[in-house]
Amino acid sequence: MANNRVKELWQRGEPAFGAWLSIPSSLSCEAIARVGYDYVCLDLQHGLIDYPDAAEMLVAINSTAATPFVRVPANDFAAINRALDAGALGIIVPMIHSADEARRAVDACLYPPNGSRSYGPVRASITFGPDYFAKANDMVMCVPMIETKDAVKDIEAIVSLPGVDAVYVGPNDLSLSLGQSPAADNDGAYKLAYHEIAKQCEIAGVVAGIHANAGLVSKHRETGFRMITISSDTGLLRRGAARDLELAKKP
Amino acid sequence: MANNRVKELWQRGEPAFGAWLSIPSSLSCEAIARVGYDYVCLDLQHGLIDYPDAAEMLVAINSTAATPFVRVPANDFAAINRALDAGALGIIVPMIHSADEARRAVDACLYPPNGSRSYGPVRASITFGPDYFAKANDMVMCVPMIETKDAVKDIEAIVSLPGVDAVYVGPNDLSLSLGQSPAADNDGAYKLAYHEIAKQCEIAGVVAGIHANAGLVSKHRETGFRMITISSDTGLLRRGAARDLELAKKP
Amino acid sequence: MANNRVKELWQRGEPAFGAWLSIPSSLSCEAIARVGYDYVCLDLQHGLIDYPDAAEMLVAINSTAATPFVRVPANDFAAINRALDAGALGIIVPMIHSADEARRAVDACLYPPNGSRSYGPVRASITFGPDYFAKANDMVMCVPMIETKDAVKDIEAIVSLPGVDAVYVGPNDLSLSLGQSPAADNDGAYKLAYHEIAKQCEIAGVVAGIHANAGLVSKHRETGFRMITISSDTGLLRRGAARDLELAKKP
Amino acid sequence: MANNRVKELWQRGEPAFGAWLSIPSSLSCEAIARVGYDYVCLDLQHGLIDYPDAAEMLVAINSTAATPFVRVPANDFAAINRALDAGALGIIVPMIHSADEARRAVDACLYPPNGSRSYGPVRASITFGPDYFAKANDMVMCVPMIETKDAVKDIEAIVSLPGVDAVYVGPNDLSLSLGQSPAADNDGAYKLAYHEIAKQCEIAGVVAGIHANAGLVSKHRETGFRMITISSDTGLLRRGAARDLELAKKP
Amino acid sequence: MANNRVKELWQRGEPAFGAWLSIPSSLSCEAIARVGYDYVCLDLQHGLIDYPDAAEMLVAINSTAATPFVRVPANDFAAINRALDAGALGIIVPMIHSADEARRAVDACLYPPNGSRSYGPVRASITFGPDYFAKANDMVMCVPMIETKDAVKDIEAIVSLPGVDAVYVGPNDLSLSLGQSPAADNDGAYKLAYHEIAKQCEIAGVVAGIHANAGLVSKHRETGFRMITISSDTGLLRRGAARDLELAKKP
Amino acid sequence: MANNRVKELWQRGEPAFGAWLSIPSSLSCEAIARVGYDYVCLDLQHGLIDYPDAAEMLVAINSTAATPFVRVPANDFAAINRALDAGALGIIVPMIHSADEARRAVDACLYPPNGSRSYGPVRASITFGPDYFAKANDMVMCVPMIETKDAVKDIEAIVSLPGVDAVYVGPNDLSLSLGQSPAADNDGAYKLAYHEIAKQCEIAGVVAGIHANAGLVSKHRETGFRMITISSDTGLLRRGAARDLELAKKP
Repeated sequence: MANNRVKELWQRGEPAFGAWLSIPSSLSCEAIARVGYDYVCLDLQHGLIDYPDAAEMLVAINSTAATPFVRVPANDFAAINRALDAGALGIIVPMIHSADEARRAVDACLYPPNGSRSYGPVRASITFGPDYFAKANDMVMCVPMIETKDAVKDIEAIVSLPGVDAVYVGPNDLSLSLGQSPAADNDGAYKLAYHEIAKQCEIAGVVAGIHANAGLVSKHRETGFRMITISSDTGLLRRGAARDLELAKKP
Repeated sequence: MANNRVKELWQRGEPAFGAWLSIPSSLSCEAIARVGYDYVCLDLQHGLIDYPDAAEMLVAINSTAATPFVRVPANDFAAINRALDAGALGIIVPMIHSADEARRAVDACLYPPNGSRSYGPVRASITFGPDYFAKANDMVMCVPMIETKDAVKDIEAIVSLPGVDAVYVGPNDLSLSLGQSPAADNDGAYKLAYHEIAKQCEIAGVVAGIHANAGLVSKHRETGFRMITISSDTGLLRRGAARDLELAKKP
Repeated sequence: MANNRVKELWQRGEPAFGAWLSIPSSLSCEAIARVGYDYVCLDLQHGLIDYPDAAEMLVAINSTAATPFVRVPANDFAAINRALDAGALGIIVPMIHSADEARRAVDACLYPPNGSRSYGPVRASITFGPDYFAKANDMVMCVPMIETKDAVKDIEAIVSLPGVDAVYVGPNDLSLSLGQSPAADNDGAYKLAYHEIAKQCEIAGVVAGIHANAGLVSKHRETGFRMITISSDTGLLRRGAARDLELAKKP
Repeated sequence: MANNRVKELWQRGEPAFGAWLSIPSSLSCEAIARVGYDYVCLDLQHGLIDYPDAAEMLVAINSTAATPFVRVPANDFAAINRALDAGALGIIVPMIHSADEARRAVDACLYPPNGSRSYGPVRASITFGPDYFAKANDMVMCVPMIETKDAVKDIEAIVSLPGVDAVYVGPNDLSLSLGQSPAADNDGAYKLAYHEIAKQCEIAGVVAGIHANAGLVSKHRETGFRMITISSDTGLLRRGAARDLELAKKP
Repeated sequence: MANNRVKELWQRGEPAFGAWLSIPSSLSCEAIARVGYDYVCLDLQHGLIDYPDAAEMLVAINSTAATPFVRVPANDFAAINRALDAGALGIIVPMIHSADEARRAVDACLYPPNGSRSYGPVRASITFGPDYFAKANDMVMCVPMIETKDAVKDIEAIVSLPGVDAVYVGPNDLSLSLGQSPAADNDGAYKLAYHEIAKQCEIAGVVAGIHANAGLVSKHRETGFRMITISSDTGLLRRGAARDLELAKKP
Repeated sequence: MANNRVKELWQRGEPAFGAWLSIPSSLSCEAIARVGYDYVCLDLQHGLIDYPDAAEMLVAINSTAATPFVRVPANDFAAINRALDAGALGIIVPMIHSADEARRAVDACLYPPNGSRSYGPVRASITFGPDYFAKANDMVMCVPMIETKDAVKDIEAIVSLPGVDAVYVGPNDLSLSLGQSPAADNDGAYKLAYHEIAKQCEIAGVVAGIHANAGLVSKHRETGFRMITISSDTGLLRRGAARDLELAKKP
């Protein structure tokens, strides 16, 4: 299954580490993808990447070993379809509040009879071959985000949905939704939710994923997470730049 | 003199630290520029930045405290004029082989009577104000690159040219030109040339600049260099990504 | 009625042949449009064309005799408005499931009192003249797609809606929706639906349209279809390339 | 409060004059913004500006004293979030029909607990600083458009909503909705609505805004409007061009 | 001769009025072109327009009655060829210093045997028809700029060259070259040069052109100029914006 | 040698068939490249592809089995360097008139000590690996075009130059240069030149290449040509479109 390293890792029970991109550039995308991440996710919700940029960047990712994910701007049928047609293999869907919303996300990811994705894999069938339609429902991964109080309440139903390959925790929004400040590693209500999500994933045999950083990997892996975003492009630039400037200016 | 931190630093005898950009994106550009570099250089020679990208990125740099430099693709009159019209304040000119070529670079940077830059500061006069023409020859910095054997031979004449504010050593090309392998910190013939350039700059009262990294700053400063590029965008991404992956995967 | 060759053909009872574009380029668009198609449709649903590309491509089509259609990504009020403001004269709306949804599509296409299109024809009034508002509701064509089982059930009501100029069959999705495999010329349930659509169009005096290829024209015309897409840009490239390679390599 | 000249003017009870942009270019944007408008609004509904263009143009506006507004294409959660993440400080939301719809617009503009804006200010936190989250709800302005009959009916409830900083009258659409022709300065039902809106704004202490031109300023100010768009980029070009041609051709 | 209104005007002894564009946008280009200019010139020297933008803008101009000119960044064979291949009908060549340089400009504009333009009219043959090659040397206009002291000295030889349809005075650069300040309407040495150019054009039967504004038309026409640029896009925006702001703020 | 199918074919004495691209789109590029051409050439001379487009399209080609060529706009050191830095493996250089000019082309293609290509393989070292510098001079192919009378006269010297891997006949320009009309398969002086080029290539052990079409392959192969461009993107579109329209309209 070409270019689907993430699915292979998950089938072997191993974790997948990813990079998160907000910069609309296929050069920065390829530079990062070739370092060795298991997946690279193009953020069309908060990143400055729009559909045409994403289409170019998917070409870049498809030339590497990394699996291409797209976080769509919203749980929108057309947006999900377009990302898949352009070559994404995984779709991360933000702001899912319920199993019903998650069902709609899955529905947009899969061709009939499993869903109602519209037919027209213009680039996907060029890139993945003329048999793309036959294998698409197996290749494509749907990943609802768990980042609201409501989603946590409905987590058991969400992870039980056929077609949900993983769920992805957005710690900042989840913290905000729970009345806490945005933070990648909170306590209190957030902590309870975090463990509940991991637990329900384990029970349902669904991968638990989370937006994180490299320093949090061991903690998240111990909790059972197997989809862990460890870097972001702007973070790499800003932290690296600060480090270089500090080094250059030290007496 | 708005946005010309580099010129102020040099007038006070202080060093300027810069970042080097190859990624055509105003987001990565602004992210980097706001960390605190004294200058940011858009590389139109080896970077994947073309003129329209550069024009957008100059807007981004102009909104920060960093001074905008452009490395033009060649010692080309039109390319130098266009970079300045779009808002660059410093021009780095690659592959200068002689004082005669350096004179042509200066000629393209300055309005008559100091040079023969063509009039038409379409964006520069919007950004820097209606008096741009009157102050342009003071604001603009011309920086020939010293990266060939021939340029080293002619270094005394080059640094003596009126209008040359600094010279910029390209260690990789200079090493290659001297029959050595490309490297940012070579010895042998390269080392001799490196010290000769610094010496002639000091005699002429011209700033010595060099393409480097943060770890080489103390060495270069001791030699007298006061324009030191310490980071590159692709380098920050690739090294940071490697660091994150190593951290994530360590047992 | 400048640039509205399709409407003229339909008023004379003649068929209109079109090309379908997925490549975001005004050069390929103009190259194709000038060959002699009656309409050219920019596919913003499955194609890799986004709004800014479409705006440039509409300029290209407007310089030819072909009538510009846009397939919007979804039955979305804003998307339909924007395509029209940018110069489209026909809107093809995917995934229409009912007369109610078709009514919403029409509503977005027409200015009050016929619909509730928002006023602001920024490019349209430049291109089509200062009297654009007065003539827009006459010029603009709304074409709901019939590509789901539900739409077929509601076909009589859909084609009876004032403001529906034509309907457009999407054979692949319609086949999938009916439990068949995606194909441009299916039998069984698809065949029944195909004839039912043609029949209801004839009764209502609405044009029947279909996504096809040049080889299927005579069949579709016999059934009564008068809006027939006969080429796609990627299809032309891929089939032509295969033919050239075969010719080059034959012994 | 950097770059928020409009909010300062309103707090002092003064009017804000703005320019309206449809041309996707950061050069025309910066050229206009530097002339001295209090705000510049990027029109993503009827203008030919899409999200990536808007992101570049926001960089340009952020380098001037003008406050950046974006008119989003629709009352869409993701579209509002993305405009804010890219650096907009004011959001103008078209086609608001009721207080309920206005409430949803506010909800998308503000972080919890005031709203449910999703966290991820990728560019905003670079541009406005690391404390962006803490100050965002104070900086950001939400401006529902009043351009339908229904909205006028619900105007009292709309202007009473916490988080509504101003409302913005779209005279063309409001005229159309009231059964009149599109016109920037209508009478009859439009005139009654116009005065009702101004009155309810005054009562609620909310700023009344309107799409206008420079010649209508004194009239609108007398009625109490304090957010007045006086120029549009295409209008400036077309009227100026007509004036130049007339002058050139006069005998 | 489609789209060559300028050549027709000149053949009838009439003047042609033009607009000068620096903004890379086909919307602003089309908006201006449709107002009624005889030509529209894309400035790739001082404008922020690069080749891909120019290609889109030429599509826009080709859809109007205006004749498309391109000012290339330099007297460069490839740049001239590319502008023509993309659909330009007139080439304005900056910084011509001598008849020899003008001859090279003509050589790049015309196919053999009149010049050595390389064959490959990719877009031109689509837009102007399959007989483009046969008519190109008649359609294309070559316009060297006279904007240096040296060019004035060689003006008699320049205007005598076969293939030079017009010359175009750049008042700012010509003033600078003559030791004066940049100004569109200078006296002294500039004035003498201005009249000498007009005189030599009249003798040679070549059109005299000049970069001007609408207020200078009567003066230039009296001197014999028949190619007069009367507007620039950024000028229209900035002057119009200043006028609107003044009107809005007057007591 | 990853992605260098052409070099492998030539080393085995086999012909390489290629496609020629003028449309700036990575989708059309990838669609074509995946059909099975041995090389795909991006035409930056007559095509509407500029450097940023080329950079994206090279990513697309690098994801396929085809070898990426770029025809640079001119025999320009910087243009050749930039195409290679962006990932091209073959450079086709137009308008070569002499062995001396060909020598300059080779010089720009190869790193010291074989040439003087400047160091900075920003994308190439990401795509082809950290050992790119060590293998670049072996991977990169330099292909001067023979399309002028002068080049034919100097053909023996041109094909004898170390570093010239192949030469490429431009039949249209060569015909024009020899006083004939542009045509892909001429007689007379062109025919003599055509055979002379093939002969000198054979003697020197250099590959003879030619711009052709699929129908001319057997003729060219018999003459000894082993680099044959058989398709162009615009040609595929226009011929295919004409065929479809003819088929659709036949009675």
